[in-house]
Amino acid sequence: MKITALAGGVGGAKLAHGLAQILPAEDLTVVVNTGDDFEHLGLSICPDLDTVCYTLAELANSETGWGRADETWNVISNVEKLGGPAWFRLGDADIGTHLERTRRLKAGEALSQITKDFCAAWGIKPTVLPMTDSAVRTVVDSDEGELAFQEYFVHRQCQPRVKGFRFEGVASAQPAVGVKEALRSADAVIFCPSNPWVSIDPILQVVKEIEKPVFAVSPIIGGKTIKGPAAKMFAELGIEPSAYAVAEHYRAILRGFILDVEDAALENKIQNLGCATLVANTRMNHPADRARLAEETLQFIRSL
Amino acid sequence: MKITALAGGVGGAKLAHGLAQILPAEDLTVVVNTGDDFEHLGLSICPDLDTVCYTLAELANSETGWGRADETWNVISNVEKLGGPAWFRLGDADIGTHLERTRRLKAGEALSQITKDFCAAWGIKPTVLPMTDSAVRTVVDSDEGELAFQEYFVHRQCQPRVKGFRFEGVASAQPAVGVKEALRSADAVIFCPSNPWVSIDPILQVVKEIEKPVFAVSPIIGGKTIKGPAAKMFAELGIEPSAYAVAEHYRAILRGFILDVEDAALENKIQNLGCATLVANTRMNHPADRARLAEETLQFIRSL
Repeated sequence: MKITALAGGVGGAKLAHGLAQILPAEDLTVVVNTGDDFEHLGLSICPDLDTVCYTLAELANSETGWGRADETWNVISNVEKLGGPAWFRLGDADIGTHLERTRRLKAGEALSQITKDFCAAWGIKPTVLPMTDSAVRTVVDSDEGELAFQEYFVHRQCQPRVKGFRFEGVASAQPAVGVKEALRSADAVIFCPSNPWVSIDPILQVVKEIEKPVFAVSPIIGGKTIKGPAAKMFAELGIEPSAYAVAEHYRAILRGFILDVEDAALENKIQNLGCATLVANTRMNHPADRARLAEETLQFIRSL
Repeated sequence: MKITALAGGVGGAKLAHGLAQILPAEDLTVVVNTGDDFEHLGLSICPDLDTVCYTLAELANSETGWGRADETWNVISNVEKLGGPAWFRLGDADIGTHLERTRRLKAGEALSQITKDFCAAWGIKPTVLPMTDSAVRTVVDSDEGELAFQEYFVHRQCQPRVKGFRFEGVASAQPAVGVKEALRSADAVIFCPSNPWVSIDPILQVVKEIEKPVFAVSPIIGGKTIKGPAAKMFAELGIEPSAYAVAEHYRAILRGFILDVEDAALENKIQNLGCATLVANTRMNHPADRARLAEETLQFIRSL
C-alpha cells in the first residue's frame, strides 16, 4: 500500500516517523507544509520540514518539539551578546542546516532538490517533499492586525487572537516536483495530526485537489492540542475545539477519521459527517506509540 | 601620546593588545585591514577585524591564531555533513558574530558602526576601525591566475606563487568615519607586525597619505614570518625576505623601524634607508611580551 502523508511539525513528524518504520521506503512520501518558513538572521528557515527530517533521521529534540537533540547554543548566545535578535532559538547544528540550505537556495536550487540531498545525507529513506518550491507564507490575521506566522507563533507565543489566515503567494505556487505524482500514485492520503489551519490547509491550497481517499488523524484530543495552537485557533474562530471540529473542517474530502479513545463519545457524530471512523490511542508520548498508531491507521485504511 | 596603529590579523592584533594594555583607551585607535573580508556561506566575514577584536577582548584562540577560544564546531560539522563548503573553518560563537554583522550590513548599517557596537558589547575600550566601510577586496595575482584572497590564503593554503596584488574597489573607497581623524590627531602611527603586502598596503591605499611619523615593527624575523605568507610573498616577488626588505618596502614614509634582536646585523643597512632603528625582542610568544614590545616601541617613539 502506497501512502502519501501530509504533515506540519511535531505531531505530523511523529506519525510520519511511525509510518516510516512500517512501510517500505518507496511506499511512503511525506509532503510537508512550508507556510511557516521564514527568513531570519539572513537564514532561510523551514521549521516543519526540518522537524519532519530531524524526526525521521532520529536527530530531533523530543523534549522541545523543535530543533535537534544534543544541541549547543553558541551562535545564538553570541548574537544575543551583540544585541541581535535572539527570540527565535536556533541551535548550532540546526544553523548549519539553515546556512547550507540558504546558500543553495541563493544559488538558484529548488528547495525540493536541497531537501532530497539533505535526506540522503541524514539517511532518511522515505521521500520527503516540501509542498512547493515557491515562497508561500502563512499570514495570521489577528486582533493586532496581520502577523507573519513566526512573529505570531514564536515571538508573540500565539497570544494575539486569531481572526483568519491567508497564505501569501499561494495563488501562483505550484506543488513541488513529485507532489502531484505522490498524491496520484498513493493508495491513500493521510493527514497527520497537524494543525488544520496552518499546517494542512496551506498544503491543500497548493495541491488544490486530492483524488485519492483521505484519512485524517485528529490533532485535537479532549478539546485540546498536545502541542501548538490548533485548539486555541478553533475557539477564536468561533468553533468549539474538538475532534469533531477537525473532522468537520475536512468534511468535503474525508474518507476516514481517526480520533482518540478519550473522544470516543464523538464517534457517531463524526460518522454522521459521512466518514468512517477509528477510535484509537492517538497519543504518541513514547517512540513506540508512533509505529503502533501508524499500524492501526494502515489497518483501518486497508479495512475500507 | 596618541597612537594610531595599522593592523592585519594575528601579529598586528598582538601588538595592538600590548598597546591597549599601556595606553589610555582614548589615546589608541587601531585601523584594521578589511581587504581579506569575504562573503562565504552567505556570511560577511572580516577575518582581520575579528582577530583584532577577539584579541583585544581576550576571546581569541591563541593556538590557531584565528577564531575564538573554547569554540564548538557544530555548525560547520553539519554543513559538511550536508555536503556544503567546509574548507573555511568557522566556529559556532564566531558564526554568531558573522550572522549578526551580516544582518546589520544588509539592513544598510556601516561596518564601522557595527564594529563600534560589537566592541562595546565585548568590552573593548580602544577605538577599532575598519579601514573603510566600502568593499575593498584583495585579489592575488598568481601563477594560477587571479585568486580571491581567502581562496589563495585558506583554501589553497598560499601554495600558488604570487605575482602581485590588487585591491578591488580601492579606487572609490573612502576611509571609514574616524580613520582620517585618528591619523591626523595621532602623535605617531605604528605599523604593527603585519603582512606589508596584504595587510598594511591595502590600508595605505585607502588612506592615501599619512602625515604623522610612521614607525613599523618588522613582521619578518630571521628571513621568516612567525605566521602567514609575508616572507613567501617577498621571495616570490623576487625580494629576499628580511627585516630590511620590510623597511625598504615602507621606506618612503618610515620614521623609525623596530627589528628583532635576531636581525641586529641588519641595523646599519636599515638606518641607511634613512630611518631610526630599535633592536628589540619582537617575538610575542607569551601574552606578557605584547605589553613589553608595546612599551619598548612607545619609548623608542618618545626618544625621537
